[in-house]
Amino acid sequence: MPIEVYNKITMQVKDHRKRVLDYAEKIECSTVVSFIPEDTFYLTGFWGEAVGICCDKCTKIITPALETARAEETALSCEIISAERGKDILLRVIDELAGKSVCTDSTDFHTIMLMFEKLGERNVKINNKPFTMSRIIKDLDEQDKISKAAKIIDSLFKISVEQIKENRTEIELMALLVSETYLLGGTLVSYKSTRYPFIIAGGPNAAFPHSEVSARPFSTGDTVTVDLVVQYWGYVADATRTFVIGHATDEIKQVYECVKDAQQIGLESLRSAVNFGEVDLACRNLIAGRGYGSRFIHSTGHGIGLEVHELPWINKTGKEKLKPGMSITIEPGVYINGRFGVRIEDSVIIKPSIGKDDSLHNRNTISNLNSFPKDLICLG
Amino acid sequence: MPIEVYNKITMQVKDHRKRVLDYAEKIECSTVVSFIPEDTFYLTGFWGEAVGICCDKCTKIITPALETARAEETALSCEIISAERGKDILLRVIDELAGKSVCTDSTDFHTIMLMFEKLGERNVKINNKPFTMSRIIKDLDEQDKISKAAKIIDSLFKISVEQIKENRTEIELMALLVSETYLLGGTLVSYKSTRYPFIIAGGPNAAFPHSEVSARPFSTGDTVTVDLVVQYWGYVADATRTFVIGHATDEIKQVYECVKDAQQIGLESLRSAVNFGEVDLACRNLIAGRGYGSRFIHSTGHGIGLEVHELPWINKTGKEKLKPGMSITIEPGVYINGRFGVRIEDSVIIKPSIGKDDSLHNRNTISNLNSFPKDLICLG
Repeated sequence: MPIEVYNKITMQVKDHRKRVLDYAEKIECSTVVSFIPEDTFYLTGFWGEAVGICCDKCTKIITPALETARAEETALSCEIISAERGKDILLRVIDELAGKSVCTDSTDFHTIMLMFEKLGERNVKINNKPFTMSRIIKDLDEQDKISKAAKIIDSLFKISVEQIKENRTEIELMALLVSETYLLGGTLVSYKSTRYPFIIAGGPNAAFPHSEVSARPFSTGDTVTVDLVVQYWGYVADATRTFVIGHATDEIKQVYECVKDAQQIGLESLRSAVNFGEVDLACRNLIAGRGYGSRFIHSTGHGIGLEVHELPWINKTGKEKLKPGMSITIEPGVYINGRFGVRIEDSVIIKPSIGKDDSLHNRNTISNLNSFPKDLICLG
Repeated sequence: MPIEVYNKITMQVKDHRKRVLDYAEKIECSTVVSFIPEDTFYLTGFWGEAVGICCDKCTKIITPALETARAEETALSCEIISAERGKDILLRVIDELAGKSVCTDSTDFHTIMLMFEKLGERNVKINNKPFTMSRIIKDLDEQDKISKAAKIIDSLFKISVEQIKENRTEIELMALLVSETYLLGGTLVSYKSTRYPFIIAGGPNAAFPHSEVSARPFSTGDTVTVDLVVQYWGYVADATRTFVIGHATDEIKQVYECVKDAQQIGLESLRSAVNFGEVDLACRNLIAGRGYGSRFIHSTGHGIGLEVHELPWINKTGKEKLKPGMSITIEPGVYINGRFGVRIEDSVIIKPSIGKDDSLHNRNTISNLNSFPKDLICLG
């Protein structure tokens, strides 16, 4: 690793550690222990099978033997401790924590019960906030990575427009986009409840917000929803466009305009909104006003960062306040069961207001990371 | 869905439910509740964001609104209940469980504490064995799917042999293989502690068992480890080959032969072994005998099925008994830090002995699902 890169990453993980420990101190914990790979990466720069421990004095990684050499190479300014997979790792972690006031991101019942037993219940706080609340504000380097991920998605939309054709299947398009993602320097994220890294849904499949990619061929008259999540050096962007093959019916046009307008309202509301509930409401009210309220069956958006879905949540009850450095999606959708669906989504970063007009109506500047057009595109 | 397919899948999920409930009864539970997507799929045929509940009388799926329509289409003979994401779903699940003796696969601390509080601690068992012990034996349809996944991997090895060339990068090869996987009807699995669906590791990277795919170009003299996991209709196969670019040094040849022989001994030991600890020991002893014992830094294998890593574990302490219908990997490896590594892995199904010689020395027949050659291949 070139020394400048080493120094830059070291500074970044040290800053992350400080943020997490500062938050931990507020809840009277001197030490944090991370079991979630994203949190361990945030503290150490190492992405792998490992537990991270961080206090004022040192940062340690406990990892199975097969990961030790790789951890030594990528985890900066950390002590690496090797242990047997499973309970041995956990006992080793607990040894390191003896006598400390600990906060952990673990939600695993057995891990927590063993920590309670060995360390004393009052010394262990089950609270991931030091991590989630540190990670909610992205530094400029993190913003840059999310932005690069979003640029890759824009390139993939361009390819989609060229490649979506009658009789080509959803899977064929996905195969191409997945390959391009890697060639463009991105990586894929997946989560357990879906079997595919992207959502590519034509015709009636587009009526399922979380449709599974299928062997269905695209057909004239389809709406095709292309929802792409791409990761760049650990950081994720998430964006969606919906296209039409051939001629769009009046009904499709009407739904499309509704979603497009709702998405625009959502983006605009970010400039003045105080909390994310207001942003959700702005989208939801517009869609309801056009008669599709019951067809908007998910939240307006979510935070993006090391995970696809992280704080802040942009839904009806969203109380989180908007702050510069937050990265989020705005993604309203309307779904007509059995027939078609439309969703439009951008990844966005909230920036400090740069104008002098720092009034209630313009307290944030919005950086929209996706520039691919949102006017209805009819293909073929 | 054609009626024959519908009937076949319905019979299969009903058989799965019976197995899981029979096991649950042994631990005095009348009802099982699944939070893990693989377990919910096993019970219902639906893969998504959902909780499954199964008792003698009925099978239910609790799912957020955005998944309801898709669940109705793919979950066979199940009642679908819609609830708000998060705590609302959990409370709805708990309502359904009132008055029952429940067993759950959840390991989530907050879920379990709420179930204890609302249902009474003595009515809730935290025990995933009804699922893991049912899933450990694969029926013929499941075996067929794992076998098809393995055939896709064999095709990908063939492509790898054609495509691994000096100056091509690990990422470029991965991009191609990922695309081919989808075109061949497979899907990709990933787990949180790795950022890539495959391991493709050349030269010094091959010395990391869990190397991350990188932009490093292949170079003459490299060993290149290609470790592929492919899923076919939910079921996973996992296999590895290691190639050499150009001329193999005597040291590489020696390590390669050692790993190849160890893998062969491992496979052969499956015919007579009583438990999986013996299989691990057979591989480990051979490698130790050749002087590389300290370089074999992981277990010999693991079960494969709906997950990449599931029961049985094939390691030093593996007490699980070999039984027909189990599907596993045999994957010894030797890693020379900073320079190179070799791993060879097949996916295998244990079948009942078909010969008359059903003696202690030949109690199982082994079906090796990967037929791609294992002799050292020097490329380019």
